[in-house]
Amino acid sequence: MRTYINPDKNVWSDILKRPLFDVSELYGKVQTILTEIRKNGDTALREFTEKFDGIKLDSIVVSEKEITDAEKQVSADLKEAIALAAKNIEVFHASQQSKINKIETVPGVSCWQKAVAIEKVGLYIPGGTAPLFSTVLMLAIPAQIAGCKQIVLCSPPDKTGKIHPAILYAAKVAGVTQIYKLGGVQAIGAMAYGTETVPQTYKIFGPGNQYVMAAKQLVSMNDVSIDMPAGPSEVLVVANETSNTAFVASDLLSQAEHGADSQVVLVANNSATIESVQAEIATQLATLPRKEMAEKALSNSVFIVIEDTKEQIDLINEYAPEHLILSTKNYSDISEKITNAGSVFLGELTPESAGDYASGTNHTLPTNGWARSYSGVNLDSFIKKITFQEITKQGLLTIGPAIEKMATAEELVAHKNAVTLRLKEIQ
Amino acid sequence: MRTYINPDKNVWSDILKRPLFDVSELYGKVQTILTEIRKNGDTALREFTEKFDGIKLDSIVVSEKEITDAEKQVSADLKEAIALAAKNIEVFHASQQSKINKIETVPGVSCWQKAVAIEKVGLYIPGGTAPLFSTVLMLAIPAQIAGCKQIVLCSPPDKTGKIHPAILYAAKVAGVTQIYKLGGVQAIGAMAYGTETVPQTYKIFGPGNQYVMAAKQLVSMNDVSIDMPAGPSEVLVVANETSNTAFVASDLLSQAEHGADSQVVLVANNSATIESVQAEIATQLATLPRKEMAEKALSNSVFIVIEDTKEQIDLINEYAPEHLILSTKNYSDISEKITNAGSVFLGELTPESAGDYASGTNHTLPTNGWARSYSGVNLDSFIKKITFQEITKQGLLTIGPAIEKMATAEELVAHKNAVTLRLKEIQ
Repeated sequence: MRTYINPDKNVWSDILKRPLFDVSELYGKVQTILTEIRKNGDTALREFTEKFDGIKLDSIVVSEKEITDAEKQVSADLKEAIALAAKNIEVFHASQQSKINKIETVPGVSCWQKAVAIEKVGLYIPGGTAPLFSTVLMLAIPAQIAGCKQIVLCSPPDKTGKIHPAILYAAKVAGVTQIYKLGGVQAIGAMAYGTETVPQTYKIFGPGNQYVMAAKQLVSMNDVSIDMPAGPSEVLVVANETSNTAFVASDLLSQAEHGADSQVVLVANNSATIESVQAEIATQLATLPRKEMAEKALSNSVFIVIEDTKEQIDLINEYAPEHLILSTKNYSDISEKITNAGSVFLGELTPESAGDYASGTNHTLPTNGWARSYSGVNLDSFIKKITFQEITKQGLLTIGPAIEKMATAEELVAHKNAVTLRLKEIQ
Repeated sequence: MRTYINPDKNVWSDILKRPLFDVSELYGKVQTILTEIRKNGDTALREFTEKFDGIKLDSIVVSEKEITDAEKQVSADLKEAIALAAKNIEVFHASQQSKINKIETVPGVSCWQKAVAIEKVGLYIPGGTAPLFSTVLMLAIPAQIAGCKQIVLCSPPDKTGKIHPAILYAAKVAGVTQIYKLGGVQAIGAMAYGTETVPQTYKIFGPGNQYVMAAKQLVSMNDVSIDMPAGPSEVLVVANETSNTAFVASDLLSQAEHGADSQVVLVANNSATIESVQAEIATQLATLPRKEMAEKALSNSVFIVIEDTKEQIDLINEYAPEHLILSTKNYSDISEKITNAGSVFLGELTPESAGDYASGTNHTLPTNGWARSYSGVNLDSFIKKITFQEITKQGLLTIGPAIEKMATAEELVAHKNAVTLRLKEIQ
C-alpha cells in the first residue's frame, strides 16, 4: 500500500502507472498455433486440446444431453439468481435499441442509418475452478437482443472433458446457439477462421489469459473484429467523511481478489478516511479465501488524499478507471464531470458487485486507460450501422453542382461525371 | 473484366476474392520508426520528415498565417461547395446524437449510458497531388459535433513545405484545433505517443498508404484506438432492365479511378444489361484523365448475371461491399434485406459520388469485408458511452441476494461480502 497526500499533478501519471500489459512477446508462439489451426482445422484443434488441456476428446461439440445434464446439476437457488440477473441484463440492453432516424439533409436528399446485427459472434469464456457464468450472460444476452443469428461459445474442457454446468446452463438461458470445448488460442483460432466443426465468426468477445489476448490481437488484424483490448481489472473508489469505510474496504477487496495484478485505488479528501478504510481492509481481509491473491494486489494499491474536488475529478479523468465507485453522499459533485471511465457506481449502496452480476449493466469494460476511447460492451457491440441514402431529382439538382466542383478539385473526374451525366438527363 | 452467368453459390467466394491486404511484412520497418518517435519525439519527426518527405522544416506547426493565406487561395466557387457539403455532413451527423435513457431494471436499480466525446482525436489526411479535403470534412465535422476538445490533423508537407490550401481551408471550416505538417508513419507515431510539439491523442482516424495502415495497426495494440482496419475501396452495383446503363457505367468508373486495386463488381439479372454497361464503360473511359489507373482496376472487375433476386441478396451479403449501389427502379426488393454493407445508395439518381462528398453521409467506410462487423465512421466513432448505476435500499434488497449467490458460485467471496455488509446495515 502506498499513500500520497495532495501529490502534485505532474506526478499523478507516475503514481497511477499501470503494469505494462504487452503481450507482443507471445505473438510468435501464438501465431504458430493460429497458423496450424487455419491450415489443419479440426485436426489441429484436437492436437492442441490434447497438448494444452491434457484431454483427448472424441468430440469438441457440447451435446444437447450434456446441456440437459448440466441443467440438473445447477441448484434451484443459483438458477433463480441467474434468472434475476438475466432479466435485468435483458431489460438494460434492450433499452439501448435505437430507432431508424431518417432525415433530409436538404429537400430530396434522405439519409439514415440502420442498425443490423452482426450475423455470427464468438464468445470466449475462460476455464479454471471458478466458472465465469456471469460473463456468459453479459455477452450472450445482448447478442441475442441484437439479433445475432449464430452465437458461438467456446470454453476449455476440464480434465474429464467437461465444461462447468453453470456455464452450460447460463449459455442455454442466454440463447447461445453452439458450444464447443475449446480453450485458449485454439478457441480464438477456431472462431476466427472456422474449421470443419466450428463456424467462422465475425467478432470475438470475452476475457482470457495473455495467450488468449495475444491471439485476439493477432486475428483482429486481418480476419475478425474483437470487443476491445484487455488488461488487468481496476477500481478507483472515491470516499470522504460521509463514507461508510467498511463498505469502501469491501469494494477495494472485491477488486483485489481478482488477481495479483488488479489495480486498486482510493481517493479521499482527508487522511482519517484513508486510515479508517485501511483498518477495515485488514479486518475483512483476514477471512477471505483468496486472501493471498488479494494481499498481493493490495501491496500495489494506491491511497491518495486530494482535498480539492476539482482536482479529484481531474485525476479520475486522467486515470480513466474501468470501475469508478463514488461512495459518498454528495457523489453528484463528481459524477456529472466524469469524462473517462468504464462504469460508474453512485453512492454507498451501489457496489461494483452489483454491476458485475445483477443490476443489468455490462461487466465487460475497458481497462488499462482504454476508457478514454472505448465503451464497455453494450448493445452497439453486437451491431453495425449501415448507412442508406436516396436522392430525388430535386435533391440532385441541389447538391449535384457542389459534388462536381469538389470532385474536380480532388481530380476525380469520373466521380464528377457520375453526377454530370445524371444532371444532363434531368435538367 | 470477368463475366459469370449464374455462377454456383460455392464459387462466389472465389469469384469475389479480394486481393490480400496484409501489411504485416512492413511491421518491422514501421516499428523501428515508431520506436524512434516514441524515444526522440520532435527530433525524430524532423529527421524522418527530411528523409521521407525530402524537406527540412523549421516548424511542423501550421501557423495562423498559413491558414489565412490558404483561405485566399481557395476559389469562391469551391468554398461555396465545401459550405454546402459541410452543412449536410453536420445535419446528418448531428441527427445521430442520442439522449440519455435512464431506466430502472427493477425498482430502485437505475442504469443508464452517457455519451461522452473522446477528448483528443487525431486525423490523418494523405498528401499527393489531389488534396483529400473532403476527408477532412468527413472526420472533423463529426468530431466537432461529438464535442472532442482537441481535433489534431496531420498531413504531409509538399516539397516546398506546404499543405494544400484546400485541406487547410476545410480544416478551418470543420473546427480542427491543431494542424501539423507530418506524413506517413511520423504522423501516426506523433499522434499516438505525443511529442514536445504534437499532443498525444486517444483515437486516430483516416486513410493512408500501406505504411500508414501498418503504423495504425501497430499503435492500436497498446496505445491508441483507430477507426477501423483498411483495404482498397470497393463498389458493388446492382442493375437490371430498368437501369440507365450509362449511369451504372459512370458509377463503376468512379470506383475504378481510385486506384489499380479498386474492387469493381456489377450484378445484373440479365446479360444484355451487362453488355450495355460494358459498352458504356468503353465510351466513358476514353476521356478520363485517370484512364490508365481505371483500366487496371477494370481488368480485375467482375460482372455477374444472377437472375434470382434472393440469390442476388445472398451474394451481396456474403461479399459485404463497402459501397452498394442499387441502380434499379425496384431497389426496395433488395435494400430491405441487406445485412452486410458499408453504405447503400438507392435508385438511379443516387450515385456514390453524392455520399463521397455532399449528401451528408460519411465516406469513411469498412472495406475488405469488414462491413460484416464494422460501421462506417459516424458520430459514435467520436464518443464512448459511460455506464452509470445508482441503487437504493429497496433496489439492493431486491437484487442483493442474487448477487451473493452468483458471487459465491464464482468463488469470489469479497464480491459477495460487499453486498452482505450492506444488506446487514439496511435490513
